[in-house]
Amino acid sequence: MADRGIELQGIVVRDPKKYEELYPNFPFISINKIPKSKEATFILCVKDDQIMGFLDELIQFGLSNSTVVHCSGSFNSRSMTPYFENNGYLYPLQTFNQNHDIDFDAIPIFVGGSNSNTLNTILTIANRLGNNVHEISESKRKTLHLCAVYINNFGNRLFGVAQDIANKEEIPFEYLKPLAEETVRVVFEKNHKSAQTGPAKRKDISTIERHLDYLREKGLIEELEMYLMFTKMIQDENR
Amino acid sequence: MADRGIELQGIVVRDPKKYEELYPNFPFISINKIPKSKEATFILCVKDDQIMGFLDELIQFGLSNSTVVHCSGSFNSRSMTPYFENNGYLYPLQTFNQNHDIDFDAIPIFVGGSNSNTLNTILTIANRLGNNVHEISESKRKTLHLCAVYINNFGNRLFGVAQDIANKEEIPFEYLKPLAEETVRVVFEKNHKSAQTGPAKRKDISTIERHLDYLREKGLIEELEMYLMFTKMIQDENR
Repeated sequence: MADRGIELQGIVVRDPKKYEELYPNFPFISINKIPKSKEATFILCVKDDQIMGFLDELIQFGLSNSTVVHCSGSFNSRSMTPYFENNGYLYPLQTFNQNHDIDFDAIPIFVGGSNSNTLNTILTIANRLGNNVHEISESKRKTLHLCAVYINNFGNRLFGVAQDIANKEEIPFEYLKPLAEETVRVVFEKNHKSAQTGPAKRKDISTIERHLDYLREKGLIEELEMYLMFTKMIQDENR
Repeated sequence: MADRGIELQGIVVRDPKKYEELYPNFPFISINKIPKSKEATFILCVKDDQIMGFLDELIQFGLSNSTVVHCSGSFNSRSMTPYFENNGYLYPLQTFNQNHDIDFDAIPIFVGGSNSNTLNTILTIANRLGNNVHEISESKRKTLHLCAVYINNFGNRLFGVAQDIANKEEIPFEYLKPLAEETVRVVFEKNHKSAQTGPAKRKDISTIERHLDYLREKGLIEELEMYLMFTKMIQDENR
């Protein structure tokens, strides 16, 4: 973060020893060794269900004047206010995978704060991290997170069905990559309804039947239910 | 196709007048004006359920020595043999949308033929159209087509759920594009199971409940069923 002009005072963790060996160049600080009087901005990069516990510990060290920022899509920010008046969120809309550098400039970051001072602090940090920063309300951030679940979590699982079928039949899955990329390109260019093609859309019953037969034969029951559900949804909207 | 070294003798259609106005530079031929003695290769770019009717007409004009090639993922090639001994397929694995130029070099093309001469003819054409040509069996081509249905047809419908939710809440849908692109990148790099993240994977019940509440409140019943189905599938595989 130093190359972005952000002064990182330390990475607060429960047990620095666990991390120091892995990342010897990072300034880890034990949570019970934060200087008591220090006012700082804490960015909480932890799972949703660990946020409140972390606030509990911070407040024990008399840090209630500090600013706390969570990075969650769905966490309820208001539940932080009894602990820290200055609170907010910095939500980078991307899926993070190990072993892959993240280009923060390509990632939209959504921010909000409990008051204008806090918002400005968070905006400053976000604008140094990336250049695609948007102020967004608590409720819209949660809706965005729901959309992200459909696109990333469910999208991964959907593509996984094709991946498993291709693998089992010894068909290289990468054959399907240009199609997947085009699918994304098109749905972000026009409405999904006008982009829709395929047997379900054109009511090609014999192809649908052949696909269902295949899935039944292979014992792919969940995949068959998925096929029926999508086919129904596509047909429902094209009546 | 001329710039690819393929001599295109004509585009056979039922009613040339319908097309000549739209595409004045294309050589349309009426189906009942094909020179009777001519042996040629016919590439059938028609819907699956029109292929047999088209063969019926061609055979009436005494063209049974010709080669016929369908472009379908799921059509049963063997049903062509009683009409034309020399038959096969040239299946470009991509979704075609109007108003967008297709880069054939980026599209995998899958070919097969009823005999080696026919296969060679089709290979020659395919290799001039693109540079990502693969010989594939009838059954694998059909499996590929099923995979393509999951990725493109169902993928479009899945992303459409997020698109509709974003639109209704006046959230710009393009905010989600980097995430969608990353979803594709990652699942083609590693197995979907290790790429899986999200509330379903980490059994984050309170986030799941909030999402279901939202979908119920908005009356998004099919979207709610979809949410439950994917959540169950992801949890089933992470027991």
